[in-house]
Amino acid sequence: MVEGFAVDLGGTKTAAARIAAGRIEERLQTPTDGDASFWSQLDAMAALLDRLGFEAGANLGVAVAGRVDGAGRWQAVNAHTLPGIGEEPLLEQMRARFGSNVVVRNDAAAATLAEALMGAGIGADHFAYLTVSTGIGGGVVLSGRLLNSRNGLAGHVGFVSSPLGEARCGSGRYGTMEVTASGRAIAAFAGTRDAKEAFETRTQKAQVAIDRSAAAIARLCGDLTAIFGLDRVAIGGSVGLAKGYLSRVEMHLEREPPLFRVPLTLATLGQDSALLGALLPEG
Amino acid sequence: MVEGFAVDLGGTKTAAARIAAGRIEERLQTPTDGDASFWSQLDAMAALLDRLGFEAGANLGVAVAGRVDGAGRWQAVNAHTLPGIGEEPLLEQMRARFGSNVVVRNDAAAATLAEALMGAGIGADHFAYLTVSTGIGGGVVLSGRLLNSRNGLAGHVGFVSSPLGEARCGSGRYGTMEVTASGRAIAAFAGTRDAKEAFETRTQKAQVAIDRSAAAIARLCGDLTAIFGLDRVAIGGSVGLAKGYLSRVEMHLEREPPLFRVPLTLATLGQDSALLGALLPEG
Repeated sequence: MVEGFAVDLGGTKTAAARIAAGRIEERLQTPTDGDASFWSQLDAMAALLDRLGFEAGANLGVAVAGRVDGAGRWQAVNAHTLPGIGEEPLLEQMRARFGSNVVVRNDAAAATLAEALMGAGIGADHFAYLTVSTGIGGGVVLSGRLLNSRNGLAGHVGFVSSPLGEARCGSGRYGTMEVTASGRAIAAFAGTRDAKEAFETRTQKAQVAIDRSAAAIARLCGDLTAIFGLDRVAIGGSVGLAKGYLSRVEMHLEREPPLFRVPLTLATLGQDSALLGALLPEG
Repeated sequence: MVEGFAVDLGGTKTAAARIAAGRIEERLQTPTDGDASFWSQLDAMAALLDRLGFEAGANLGVAVAGRVDGAGRWQAVNAHTLPGIGEEPLLEQMRARFGSNVVVRNDAAAATLAEALMGAGIGADHFAYLTVSTGIGGGVVLSGRLLNSRNGLAGHVGFVSSPLGEARCGSGRYGTMEVTASGRAIAAFAGTRDAKEAFETRTQKAQVAIDRSAAAIARLCGDLTAIFGLDRVAIGGSVGLAKGYLSRVEMHLEREPPLFRVPLTLATLGQDSALLGALLPEG
């Protein structure tokens, strides 16, 4: 049972929660200072935990945007998301500050675990979660086990090529999912400040940008099905959960042959999935 | 230790071998009749096993092109490869003919297991094998375990989208690796009878076709690295092992950022990998 404290540090917001019996009892949130140094991010997390009444030695799960390797080192993958983070000793420093019961992992991996075990993935044997938000993240759980790798890169589907991609990504790769289907990409194509404005406006440019995102996500779902033999994919994130988005993805997926038409569902844990998953065992 | 008999039924050739102490003692090969029915393919395999002196009850590993699900049913994925095969009771019929010590699996999955445990993958924790031949196949071994799925689709990377793809594939998908980088695709782009002729001729069209294949394989290697956090990729198959091909793939992979530049190597077991891997446990 999930019990303790959790932090979720994303590119846009930092949340922390006190969790008991697998439920969030109290939740705090602040905007993330995207350009801050590692040490400032540690202070920001500590401030939230302090306000929640964290006591040394309690269970603490930390989920962060970026790559977290097997030794708990933290590194930005996309130069546009947390550029101040470069191979930082996250686990070591969190343990020094908060005690030995600390675990650290990628935010999308944490959300994937939570959806797999407590949310939209229950009952699926080969399950993937995709978060379409400012960026794109994801993860895969195979027979109850989270796919991970020593370098912490596994599951970073935002950096997979898209056949619809045509721009350089902050990862250095060309034409990735991030520059094609993310909220940032939608806003860039639509000419709006952010994806939210693109969904609100009725311009054709915005419609085209959203549709391109949905088409790219549908292709990725077909690709991941070829690679993993998936039973189900859950779509989350602010864009993924926006009204009408999932049905657009489904419309594009209908054009795939039946074998690659994996069942899609909305993520069910909303914005709390990374917090809940930060404390879960990897299986 | 691999001991017994093995069959490898591909789209182009059917091979069978007697194997002792993990080595091939005797090997026979015939062309595959690509349009034959399931029952004819069973007869062709039986004829080879008979010539090798198979005795009922011996270990028998069967590797076939196409999808083999958890119940041992066999189905073509690409309509241009073994179109006569549609949800056939492969395991059931092989056991009825050859005794209970029969295992069946996809040919590329078998080759992946062999390369992982006995060949180019030794020492790699997250390993992928890609075979670039008439078609494209592959597999992934994570910490000694073959990635598979109940529907037998896992590992079918030939049906993943390529950003360089621009034709309909026999799987029904659009712009897959198979229609972009396979030997069949090279011959189609080059205007030659087969990939071998494309490698022999000096025309610019053939050079462009081979280079496009290598570029698509490099992108796939980067994509699979983002998805799995791979340590190493081995390239095999008649095209993959052709002189100069691997270095072309490496040249394209050099354009990727360091994190996605997975080390490449040639497969070391050559045409025997699927035979050897047909008998290996999945880990």
